[in-house]
Amino acid sequence: MNDELTATLRQLIHGRMIAALGTLHQGAPFVSMVPYGVARDGSLILHVSRLAAHTRDMLDNPDVSLLITESEAAGKMPQALARVTVQGRAQKLDRDSQDHTDARDVYLARFPDAAPLFEFSDFSIFIINPVSARVVAGFGQAVTITGDDFATVLSGANSS
Amino acid sequence: MNDELTATLRQLIHGRMIAALGTLHQGAPFVSMVPYGVARDGSLILHVSRLAAHTRDMLDNPDVSLLITESEAAGKMPQALARVTVQGRAQKLDRDSQDHTDARDVYLARFPDAAPLFEFSDFSIFIINPVSARVVAGFGQAVTITGDDFATVLSGANSS
Repeated sequence: MNDELTATLRQLIHGRMIAALGTLHQGAPFVSMVPYGVARDGSLILHVSRLAAHTRDMLDNPDVSLLITESEAAGKMPQALARVTVQGRAQKLDRDSQDHTDARDVYLARFPDAAPLFEFSDFSIFIINPVSARVVAGFGQAVTITGDDFATVLSGANSS
Repeated sequence: MNDELTATLRQLIHGRMIAALGTLHQGAPFVSMVPYGVARDGSLILHVSRLAAHTRDMLDNPDVSLLITESEAAGKMPQALARVTVQGRAQKLDRDSQDHTDARDVYLARFPDAAPLFEFSDFSIFIINPVSARVVAGFGQAVTITGDDFATVLSGANSS
């Protein structure tokens, strides 16, 4: 991945707050909105309620897809918007684990208003472990990278 | 659906230009960015290249999901963003049909810069026929409606 695509990927993931989460729902794709955080190892952190369809979907089938897109701008062709699709596997964290504590801290640093949601028993943290990612910087500038490369580019996200 | 949710739905679909399209890709969900238009009957119009994975996915399996989300705004909790998920079935239009001409005209009225793409043989119009929609206006304000209701709310989109 060249420097421009690397910069685009970092800017997208750090600069945006929400992703479109695709889950498998009764055999069909289902896309919903989720806020996300970035773990220190470059995986993504979701905090979701088991009352939501996407949470039950992830428990049934961990294969997910997340799309993060540059903000729409007047006068900019939609096809020119930078975006990344992350194919990943969802893993629910045990509330009593150190991983849960670490992920919660990172998530709350980004979304302090979400603190009350951690008091609700129906909410859980899911880690999305990247398997591959398709980064599109605009017309004709696209590359598919491995999950390891995605995580390497994003790791240390919270210090940059 | 109450007046507020109806207004939210109209505002989202007419006011936004891009959706997150979920397709079934080798058995897993895959989410990508697509510009969309709104047909007079309230279905959605995509113009996509068969070189793109989502196009091949729709030809293999017409079950799709589209998420359209209000723009992120500083100081607004992500969970409070209005959004709609449309579950639908994708149908490729025959280039020689009147439906294709009508859809192209509506699409180009919204995306005049896309005109050159209609010269490319790898691009096609797909209509997304809504099956159901989940409208979320913010915290605790959500409703699931039928595809017919979705289309009724959106029909005449181009005159409103």
